[in-house]
Amino acid sequence: MTYPVRKTPRLGVCYYPEHWPREWWRDDAQRMREMGLSQVRIGEFAWSRIEPAPGRFDWSWLDEAIEVLHDAGLSIVLCTPTATPPKWLVDSMPDMLALDAEGRPRRFGSRRHYCFSHQGYRVESQRITRAIAERYGRHPAVIAWQTDNEYGCHNTTLSWSASALRDFRLWLAKHYTDIRALNDAWGNVFWSMEYSSFEQIDLPALTVTEANPAHVLDFRRFSSAQVASFNAEQCRILRTLSPGRDITHNFMGFVTDFDHHAVAADLDVAAWDSYPLGFLEQFWFSDAEKLRYARQGHPDIAAFHHDLYRGVGRGRWWVMEQQPGPVNWARFNPAPLPGMVRLWSLEAIAHGAEVVSYFRWRQAPFAQEQMHAGLLRPDREDDVAAAEVREVAAAIAAFRPLDTSSVVGAPSPRVALIFDYLAQWVTDIQPQGAGFSALQLTFEWYSAIRQLGIDVDIVPPAAKLDGYSLILVPCLPIIDERLRQRLDAVTVPVLIGARTGSKTQHFRIPAALPPGSLQDLLPLRVTRVESLRAGLIESGDGFNVRLWFEHLETDLPAEWTLSDGRGVLYRRKNLRYLAGVLDESGLRRLMTTLAAEAGLPVERLPEGVRLRRLGSLRFAFNYNSHSVSIRDVLPRSADCLMGSAELGPAAVAVWR
Amino acid sequence: MTYPVRKTPRLGVCYYPEHWPREWWRDDAQRMREMGLSQVRIGEFAWSRIEPAPGRFDWSWLDEAIEVLHDAGLSIVLCTPTATPPKWLVDSMPDMLALDAEGRPRRFGSRRHYCFSHQGYRVESQRITRAIAERYGRHPAVIAWQTDNEYGCHNTTLSWSASALRDFRLWLAKHYTDIRALNDAWGNVFWSMEYSSFEQIDLPALTVTEANPAHVLDFRRFSSAQVASFNAEQCRILRTLSPGRDITHNFMGFVTDFDHHAVAADLDVAAWDSYPLGFLEQFWFSDAEKLRYARQGHPDIAAFHHDLYRGVGRGRWWVMEQQPGPVNWARFNPAPLPGMVRLWSLEAIAHGAEVVSYFRWRQAPFAQEQMHAGLLRPDREDDVAAAEVREVAAAIAAFRPLDTSSVVGAPSPRVALIFDYLAQWVTDIQPQGAGFSALQLTFEWYSAIRQLGIDVDIVPPAAKLDGYSLILVPCLPIIDERLRQRLDAVTVPVLIGARTGSKTQHFRIPAALPPGSLQDLLPLRVTRVESLRAGLIESGDGFNVRLWFEHLETDLPAEWTLSDGRGVLYRRKNLRYLAGVLDESGLRRLMTTLAAEAGLPVERLPEGVRLRRLGSLRFAFNYNSHSVSIRDVLPRSADCLMGSAELGPAAVAVWR
Amino acid sequence: MTYPVRKTPRLGVCYYPEHWPREWWRDDAQRMREMGLSQVRIGEFAWSRIEPAPGRFDWSWLDEAIEVLHDAGLSIVLCTPTATPPKWLVDSMPDMLALDAEGRPRRFGSRRHYCFSHQGYRVESQRITRAIAERYGRHPAVIAWQTDNEYGCHNTTLSWSASALRDFRLWLAKHYTDIRALNDAWGNVFWSMEYSSFEQIDLPALTVTEANPAHVLDFRRFSSAQVASFNAEQCRILRTLSPGRDITHNFMGFVTDFDHHAVAADLDVAAWDSYPLGFLEQFWFSDAEKLRYARQGHPDIAAFHHDLYRGVGRGRWWVMEQQPGPVNWARFNPAPLPGMVRLWSLEAIAHGAEVVSYFRWRQAPFAQEQMHAGLLRPDREDDVAAAEVREVAAAIAAFRPLDTSSVVGAPSPRVALIFDYLAQWVTDIQPQGAGFSALQLTFEWYSAIRQLGIDVDIVPPAAKLDGYSLILVPCLPIIDERLRQRLDAVTVPVLIGARTGSKTQHFRIPAALPPGSLQDLLPLRVTRVESLRAGLIESGDGFNVRLWFEHLETDLPAEWTLSDGRGVLYRRKNLRYLAGVLDESGLRRLMTTLAAEAGLPVERLPEGVRLRRLGSLRFAFNYNSHSVSIRDVLPRSADCLMGSAELGPAAVAVWR
Repeated sequence: MTYPVRKTPRLGVCYYPEHWPREWWRDDAQRMREMGLSQVRIGEFAWSRIEPAPGRFDWSWLDEAIEVLHDAGLSIVLCTPTATPPKWLVDSMPDMLALDAEGRPRRFGSRRHYCFSHQGYRVESQRITRAIAERYGRHPAVIAWQTDNEYGCHNTTLSWSASALRDFRLWLAKHYTDIRALNDAWGNVFWSMEYSSFEQIDLPALTVTEANPAHVLDFRRFSSAQVASFNAEQCRILRTLSPGRDITHNFMGFVTDFDHHAVAADLDVAAWDSYPLGFLEQFWFSDAEKLRYARQGHPDIAAFHHDLYRGVGRGRWWVMEQQPGPVNWARFNPAPLPGMVRLWSLEAIAHGAEVVSYFRWRQAPFAQEQMHAGLLRPDREDDVAAAEVREVAAAIAAFRPLDTSSVVGAPSPRVALIFDYLAQWVTDIQPQGAGFSALQLTFEWYSAIRQLGIDVDIVPPAAKLDGYSLILVPCLPIIDERLRQRLDAVTVPVLIGARTGSKTQHFRIPAALPPGSLQDLLPLRVTRVESLRAGLIESGDGFNVRLWFEHLETDLPAEWTLSDGRGVLYRRKNLRYLAGVLDESGLRRLMTTLAAEAGLPVERLPEGVRLRRLGSLRFAFNYNSHSVSIRDVLPRSADCLMGSAELGPAAVAVWR
Repeated sequence: MTYPVRKTPRLGVCYYPEHWPREWWRDDAQRMREMGLSQVRIGEFAWSRIEPAPGRFDWSWLDEAIEVLHDAGLSIVLCTPTATPPKWLVDSMPDMLALDAEGRPRRFGSRRHYCFSHQGYRVESQRITRAIAERYGRHPAVIAWQTDNEYGCHNTTLSWSASALRDFRLWLAKHYTDIRALNDAWGNVFWSMEYSSFEQIDLPALTVTEANPAHVLDFRRFSSAQVASFNAEQCRILRTLSPGRDITHNFMGFVTDFDHHAVAADLDVAAWDSYPLGFLEQFWFSDAEKLRYARQGHPDIAAFHHDLYRGVGRGRWWVMEQQPGPVNWARFNPAPLPGMVRLWSLEAIAHGAEVVSYFRWRQAPFAQEQMHAGLLRPDREDDVAAAEVREVAAAIAAFRPLDTSSVVGAPSPRVALIFDYLAQWVTDIQPQGAGFSALQLTFEWYSAIRQLGIDVDIVPPAAKLDGYSLILVPCLPIIDERLRQRLDAVTVPVLIGARTGSKTQHFRIPAALPPGSLQDLLPLRVTRVESLRAGLIESGDGFNVRLWFEHLETDLPAEWTLSDGRGVLYRRKNLRYLAGVLDESGLRRLMTTLAAEAGLPVERLPEGVRLRRLGSLRFAFNYNSHSVSIRDVLPRSADCLMGSAELGPAAVAVWR
Repeated sequence: MTYPVRKTPRLGVCYYPEHWPREWWRDDAQRMREMGLSQVRIGEFAWSRIEPAPGRFDWSWLDEAIEVLHDAGLSIVLCTPTATPPKWLVDSMPDMLALDAEGRPRRFGSRRHYCFSHQGYRVESQRITRAIAERYGRHPAVIAWQTDNEYGCHNTTLSWSASALRDFRLWLAKHYTDIRALNDAWGNVFWSMEYSSFEQIDLPALTVTEANPAHVLDFRRFSSAQVASFNAEQCRILRTLSPGRDITHNFMGFVTDFDHHAVAADLDVAAWDSYPLGFLEQFWFSDAEKLRYARQGHPDIAAFHHDLYRGVGRGRWWVMEQQPGPVNWARFNPAPLPGMVRLWSLEAIAHGAEVVSYFRWRQAPFAQEQMHAGLLRPDREDDVAAAEVREVAAAIAAFRPLDTSSVVGAPSPRVALIFDYLAQWVTDIQPQGAGFSALQLTFEWYSAIRQLGIDVDIVPPAAKLDGYSLILVPCLPIIDERLRQRLDAVTVPVLIGARTGSKTQHFRIPAALPPGSLQDLLPLRVTRVESLRAGLIESGDGFNVRLWFEHLETDLPAEWTLSDGRGVLYRRKNLRYLAGVLDESGLRRLMTTLAAEAGLPVERLPEGVRLRRLGSLRFAFNYNSHSVSIRDVLPRSADCLMGSAELGPAAVAVWR
């Protein structure tokens, strides 16, 4: 995938003028500039200040804030404040609240308390968007818009409200037309679950045992589509009233409940919010990893998202919120190692970010996030990250020759890793073995290949695959016919993981058994699958299969076998199928083999070190809390623009 | 207990013609016959196909299915489809749904979504039963009926609905007549919980701290009785309209929320659904056991249920659903070891099953159980189990001389293990130490004695005890006067476990302290009980007491003592009382002693091997994934009908 | 703090005559006397017997019970029975039930099922209090009253009912007057959470993510105040109708949901219910501690509460319910080691208890607490504890010279440990690191200093600090200005722990950063805090920091530093600030240093042994299940009044 020409990366910050005395604004703006920041995001949660009562707008403070920031030479990213509808609005239509699966309203008092399906709230969302865009859409300082905030955060994609029920039934009626088609597609005969009209269908919740997975999957698709259409409504207004400005949304890490590609179809730029320490603590990582990387984050968390959102944004992406210090929302909230904010920032740039924007300018001394660090402390002094941000700004200036020379037409990554949000919904709905997650599996493959020093594009199933040297498909249970054709057409090595092709669009086992239509490419058939509890492994020579193992019927010879002779890895020409989940060492071994075949140079990196190429520049990042040497990696002649072969904790080296 | 003459064991299968194209049915029937199956269960969840709209019946497909199966020479077990009332029925009376303890409806979209107390649904249940029985009750192919499916599965015995509340009050009024009698019985004075009318009584739920255990126990008794009366209503109709056919129900493993004996009183045959791998994964077994037996199931899970349901069915019992491969509903779902389906089938036969019926004929590629294996794969090919079933069919033919010669009047087991569903309710309601379960304790005793190669009958408290050489009473907190008398009358060794006799019918401590009226037999008194967290043990010589320990007052000398001299095991003549929960080795040691006294020959079996005698035949089963030798067990002269002294993984040996 | 003259300690018991046949009462009373008991608590849960139907009182049984007890020479503590409103009352106003955070009623069928904010129930509470006080208030046997029972037990302080909502809004309106003041105080601008009227404010529950901590804290304050005003209403009536009698309430161990000092302001005596084994099992102690002390309780659990409630009661305090054997409500319920009931009783006396009252006289054979031991067994025989109670009674008689000579004006403890319920609410609401609890931290400091043989007063922030040699402030996030002034005035060593001063009254970070106004005393500023998962520690020389670490800005030299040079402990004159949570050995080391500076003699005690001075008497308690020697502690010349230098398991030694 060839991405468009990038501009010089910029640094920005998230700012809430309404949280601070007006007297401070000018000084704040000045200090932002001095720190090397050039853009500022505002207005994100400010609805109650913009419209304190129904229809009564107070623009004065926002006018002034924008002028102050503009005067200081800062560009502005304006937000629609729809993630925080004010109390008067909620009270005017209390059924706008989302309901959880147990039917409880998700009440006012924090944020994201709306249901995407509530048509009354849709009208309000458009009304406030129009009001703000009309006032500021053509303001010269406004260079971009952010819609809402972190769709899906706090599990807010799914709602079991009456509005959702009505819209779900309409959605089903539109997709199936005839209720008999739906009964057939879902296999409702199974437990006498047949319907005679779309009006009989409920949202899947509180069933005695699991609901029909086809029912749930359609609910997930519908819910995702509601997010996309909500976002599209705002985008249409912004395009009209604020022409020429970028529109973006700040996606949240490891949120997969809606299809980010579908939402991004209406955006110019994908943005994401990067909290490496919080994500490490809150997700599936082992206790050992959580300890080892407690103050750095797992070395692939940020990069995984960079490479994912580069795909989501069709090449254009930002880090909208960069963690600058301890946060408030993980079970434990340590401080980043000194240097980590600088490292994270430079790594984003190395992966192609147009913008790295910090959250937030100044730590708020009140309300929910008072324990969330900023660039400034609540007492207006610089917090620890401020100095690191200055270093990043200086580095960008130093690298500047890079920006137009290197990126055009020469994508750095030559590996395509295909991820689909739909895949995660399928494994969520039917893990079959506890903890099976398409996302986690994709992350593990990503990490394994990246540990070899290789750059990766994470791309959707619809992506073009031309120009890649290696294609990885960790887990796509429902595989699109067009992707199958593209995989058939490529000649480079392709690795396809277990469960890929195991379901039809309607969550059924394909008639010819998994991997379904992929059997045209790979003449093999999955006749049985097993999920394995921790400790129950299938051993091969130098690798173990854990969690998942498939029994295959095929005439292909096995490339890797278990000690009992059963096959694990099969190959036909350039395509391989992996019939289980490999442990870490097995995965690394397999990726090494594939890289060699793909002609990708492999580096021997110390544990915890990662590389990234950006145009002619090469970056190395030390995620360890101790020093390491990358002498093996550096070309003998290399002159480091930054750092050296001896990488201290959290250090970065850059060379050409 | 002398059981009636058994017939030759039959093999069967569960089939859902409505899931498949009509064109496949004839071929399916043919292949069933060829595989050695002679009976087929149908109609289980087919209500929406039998009656697609209120009062509109569509018999054509079922007529045809029955004819096709009949033509192929298969006997038919017909089901009442009441586990899956269709949507139109639920919508016609939405309050028919059960409510959970928090008052949430258990909604349509899976199965078992009805409340046993809803009188409107009772009428519907009888109406559909009558309709099916009228049409097929005298059909020559129909040899038996199954009522509903897996009563109690998915925690569906208890319901907190308005219907349940009304019926519970009526039930209480009938049992106590006067509200003062109820107040006295329950001890409601305790926390001013006294009622002045039955109309004041709630279902026990959402109380601030625990509800009165007497209140809860009566609710459990009532709920159990509702299952029994629901079942009885169907049975009455079937007996009238389908004379001469067996009526059965397929009970689910480790479900104890209702009294299976009470339900079975209306049945001719007890059946159960045998999923050894799922049960191992989902129940109390240790992680070590879950690993060791992941692909075999714990060696006593299936046998425990065989011996339990033989008692429930008063000698007549089937395995209605035998696991044929991986299932979909446990946390992890590995495949059975090759040979295990054969082993499980032969073990059922060795324990006296009349029928072993596999679930299901063909894996469904759609809906909730699409990951549940069948004898055939979704692509119509044989799955792994098919070949093992053929072997079982051949073995039955080979054993055939056995069927009439051996069983009459010569029950193989000489050990009676008494289990009462009521006991489990008591320990559920008042564990007093976390994890205390009468069922688990009963299982542990069962396992300990069976590891000595000894056959066991699991019998209800009402069972006659004549003819047994050893009687085991692991835990019967509420002991029936008639049982006390029977225990008094026997002269064989009896072991009575802790907590037995510790409660009255009304969940009170007996006036004379535990073990209540058993003190007439055993002059001892439990003055104090202790529950012990993991790691806190009381040590004796060669055994440890864990979880539970009782302080006794008695003049009897202690047979076993702790190192501090306190007694653990007391004996008076043939009766012993065990004042705690023993660890595994202590339990084995005690069972060895008892077996010797009872004159029961003890075998030294390798770990994971179990024996069973059926008439003149003797079976050995290797639950290990490695080979073992049973040379010590085999008589020197024995000629194995099947297998040999060297038992491979999952192997079976049979000799006379 | 100098406490008033104590009287001779008395022993008592909790008795429920309504649970037993009238024929037994006289014998019970006689045996109480013989056992050495002099007071008896009755009427606690007897509402349904006192008033069996609305307005129909039955005093006969209670008249008789009181006469019988009085005749036997027993003093009586009468209870208001408001913890158990009867069914007829609940049915007359069903909305009197508390609602949980999910809006579910906390239903009738156990106890404490009322909402403190329900005005109708307030009227009823006063009505029944008045009725009982009118009848018995001046009875010569009645020496004291207990209001209700265990406020807050079973999480009953907080209620999300309509009544609570109405009263909360009124409370807020009263405290803030203007809604804009509330918006400012809470920082509601943060997420557009601004209100335009008090009527818009909800109780904090079911918000999408966490509610505003300022909102929650005010809800906690309000809920606490409701408990206090409920209690005050009863006290006002009792004072009028029963002059000269003590009023007390039996607080429950480790319950912190309301401010016990505020409730105790209306009481004469604080009482608490001491269940050392249950508290050990149910609270934060490690598995190793739960094993080691399973039959003794952690050696500081009872003492901590003794020293806490001495402060709550302004010097006057009782143990109202002393565990006499196994209880029924912990996950596991072992029996106390022989001697422990005696030890616990004597330890209470050593800490200054006026009364030790056992719960309960006789184990009830029915209802919820039938597995809770008493002094007598259900069969009326003495249970194990009876003999130990007799020994305690004898010991008290032997110590009697002590009572007037020693206590006046010579408080034994010279260490003040400041604890505030408000602190626990703050760390509950915002732990920031999982498991952070002001209460646990306070307990750890208490344990550390007590392991040195030093006596402690646990005092509220409002306490006078004169006369103490050492002042410990483990964690007071919101610190009162008057306390700051008192700390400024003292010249003895003071240790202030992390998070102290970190919040304003409105749950904001102080403008000058933590520790807020304490910076006047200690010129340092907390610029960043980190919470650390288990295993992530900061190491110093001979100590580790775990869970919490603060980064400081100060010119003070660090007294203790981490290996990387950062400071952990800072000192300015007599004041020290500890910038993290220390592990056990670090804490002991620090307390040793402080004790030395404070001139407090330090004893080298065997693990599990604790000391206590009462006037001229010195007590030693062995919490181990093995013998230990305290020869190092005993003065060479000491003549033990009880025990000796060789302390057996659960033994007590007393000397002058």
